[in-house]
Amino acid sequence: MDLVVIGGGAAGMAAASKAKRVDPSLSVTVIEAGRYVSYAECGIPYFLEGIVTSPDQLLHYPLEEFTTRRGINVITGTSVNVIDRKNRVLVLSNSSKVKYDRLIIATGASPKVPDSLSALGIRGIRSLESGEITHNDIAKAETVAIIGDGILGIELASSLVLGGKKVFVVSRHKDILKAFDSKIGAAFREEFKQRVSVLTEASDLEVTRRNGSFVLATSGREYAVDAVISATGIVPNTKIAVDAGIATDSRGIIITDGRMLTSDPSIYSAGDCASTTNLVTGKQDWHPLAQISNKMGRVAGANAAGGRMVFPGSVGTTLVKVFDYEIGFTGLTEEQAKKDGLDAKTIFVKGMSKAGYYPGKHPVFVTMVTENVTGRMLGAQVVSKDGAAWRVNAVAAAIQARLTAEAFFYTDLGYSPPFGPVWDPLIVAADLSMK
Amino acid sequence: MDLVVIGGGAAGMAAASKAKRVDPSLSVTVIEAGRYVSYAECGIPYFLEGIVTSPDQLLHYPLEEFTTRRGINVITGTSVNVIDRKNRVLVLSNSSKVKYDRLIIATGASPKVPDSLSALGIRGIRSLESGEITHNDIAKAETVAIIGDGILGIELASSLVLGGKKVFVVSRHKDILKAFDSKIGAAFREEFKQRVSVLTEASDLEVTRRNGSFVLATSGREYAVDAVISATGIVPNTKIAVDAGIATDSRGIIITDGRMLTSDPSIYSAGDCASTTNLVTGKQDWHPLAQISNKMGRVAGANAAGGRMVFPGSVGTTLVKVFDYEIGFTGLTEEQAKKDGLDAKTIFVKGMSKAGYYPGKHPVFVTMVTENVTGRMLGAQVVSKDGAAWRVNAVAAAIQARLTAEAFFYTDLGYSPPFGPVWDPLIVAADLSMK
Repeated sequence: MDLVVIGGGAAGMAAASKAKRVDPSLSVTVIEAGRYVSYAECGIPYFLEGIVTSPDQLLHYPLEEFTTRRGINVITGTSVNVIDRKNRVLVLSNSSKVKYDRLIIATGASPKVPDSLSALGIRGIRSLESGEITHNDIAKAETVAIIGDGILGIELASSLVLGGKKVFVVSRHKDILKAFDSKIGAAFREEFKQRVSVLTEASDLEVTRRNGSFVLATSGREYAVDAVISATGIVPNTKIAVDAGIATDSRGIIITDGRMLTSDPSIYSAGDCASTTNLVTGKQDWHPLAQISNKMGRVAGANAAGGRMVFPGSVGTTLVKVFDYEIGFTGLTEEQAKKDGLDAKTIFVKGMSKAGYYPGKHPVFVTMVTENVTGRMLGAQVVSKDGAAWRVNAVAAAIQARLTAEAFFYTDLGYSPPFGPVWDPLIVAADLSMK
Repeated sequence: MDLVVIGGGAAGMAAASKAKRVDPSLSVTVIEAGRYVSYAECGIPYFLEGIVTSPDQLLHYPLEEFTTRRGINVITGTSVNVIDRKNRVLVLSNSSKVKYDRLIIATGASPKVPDSLSALGIRGIRSLESGEITHNDIAKAETVAIIGDGILGIELASSLVLGGKKVFVVSRHKDILKAFDSKIGAAFREEFKQRVSVLTEASDLEVTRRNGSFVLATSGREYAVDAVISATGIVPNTKIAVDAGIATDSRGIIITDGRMLTSDPSIYSAGDCASTTNLVTGKQDWHPLAQISNKMGRVAGANAAGGRMVFPGSVGTTLVKVFDYEIGFTGLTEEQAKKDGLDAKTIFVKGMSKAGYYPGKHPVFVTMVTENVTGRMLGAQVVSKDGAAWRVNAVAAAIQARLTAEAFFYTDLGYSPPFGPVWDPLIVAADLSMK
């Protein structure tokens, strides 16, 4: 049996490795368009910052780990142009053909760079190669503009400022990080703007090149910078899947079931190109996040090799560190919940990260979203300079377990003065959510 | 209707406050043996360390918050000698009598100081007064011995060393912190012993006073110290309850149901003197911990006032910071599980607290205990200098929600390099527990 995996990122390599473990007799081949396999794209901001000094540090394993030790064929620098489902054959970019019995599509996602920017040579960041290119692009830059105010945009801004650059963030919105509740984000946004120049409501942005610089024009003013990075979102790399008639949603995301099987019973998909079940709404959703990709890949690999694993879905937990702040989301915002027809409300809490008398404490801002009538927890956002990320993880576990606010209130989160007040902000939020 | 609460600690004041909120027409009286109400006994080690400079800082609220603002009668410096259940009357230490319609016993727990030590004037720590006395006892001491190697003993040792003392910890066991798995505790124990003199297997300990010092004799050697603190466990303060014929277990813990009702339908109990349902075993247990006491108190107060709240139970999550280490337990150890008839196994994992390329990472040691066949998570222990406490809390939420290791493996804990590797040690432990 020939198993072929398209894509050597987190999902693809997890799938290939798991498949080989489940059935060592399988022939497993990974076809990767780029030069690298199994790398930590989440580490690219730190490479740009200078904490990580070489792309090699972002490789989880050397290639030999997969080829020699795990017995996987790895073809790099080669992409797949056509999936011929009828004949179970792939046509590669070098025109050669590869037969498959089982296929796993793990082609990931790419930056969605507006044409007006890409025409100027401005790029986004996703693959390790794109990180290397950007590293070179900004090496001599003193000022860098980031177009986009989402998680990646603000994370990059933080990394580049800490790496010594002067940074602009350009936002189409009223303020940065739109998904982030205005109440709990106020202190963070204020500090961010002390270190980064933020240009908001810039949907009129025009970028031009002039004398080796980029000039950003918005709201009647001009800003000259040495380099520009696009961080305006991502799109799934699913053209070959769409062309082959594999079922995708309106955004082009490959629809998968709990076994990570696509609409073709010989083809699985995993990672940033594949759908997941949103465990809050119960509906298909897209959570292109590294840990989810890893787990999806493992499940796809096991099933493609004849095993049986089920990926139950995810709640979209997202963590980021921006300057000294930890920021985390899990589940839905009230707005998202209402769009989905859920009768939701939000509770806002400002508490402290440690007991009142304990040194080194910081404010913890929490929003908790619950469903009226049932009391089920639907989502939470936490921001703090101390302990926000793992607080969000505790809530994520509770949401995934479908706890109500009342059940979460009684959850036996340990208390000790260095780690929280006796009524932790999370517990207070759960308490208020019950009322 | 007269509601009387015996004990003004966390549980008692939470009960009184909640009762008054549920039914403002209630007459609510708290009778507290000591001088203080509503204080943070968990802060006493920091008072001894010098981080907290006055006991007042450990009061959650000034007395007026309860008396003037919340309308609660508070009697301090007075204990209850007799509960006359037939006549619903309490006989106080000043011989006066107080009538009750509903009673809440929240008398807490006291240090279990061996007679041989208390005869020498050696005390334990639990109440704020006991903290003040110890603060005076050790004020001029250069060397302090702590008898007992449990959570409180090692926490005190850390505080006193950081406060400038030379400290001995005396243990009856082979090593300190018996409940703590030997594999995951090795690095911690080694560092602890670099800063604290640990005398182990000291069940032959004899303490005497000589020329204003205390002399500890064990294993044929003598150690002279300026002060000694007993930290050999606690006992519930339930003599009056036992005398009144209220049902207690063999340890004297008052047996309560989910409403915190005792065997007497007019009498509730909450806090360190009351039992809880261990949510792992389903059996009555004792978790004398501050946050649990607070929640129990609130439930007891609501129900005593005619409301309806249910305390579901607890899993005994315990966190402590000792020098740079965060140490946490939740649920059962394998040994405890087996004693309880559960078919349990333990997985041990050493991982890192952040992504491999991210600076400031530390090892994270995890044990995860699961039930064979069902895969249900029964307990976990985590120790690290980075992020152990809230990792334990995430597991605590999962255990309380009765997740299996498989469900926890798929839990959408957020990933970002500053907060964990892409396969967090918790996720790895869950994965290995499935095998």
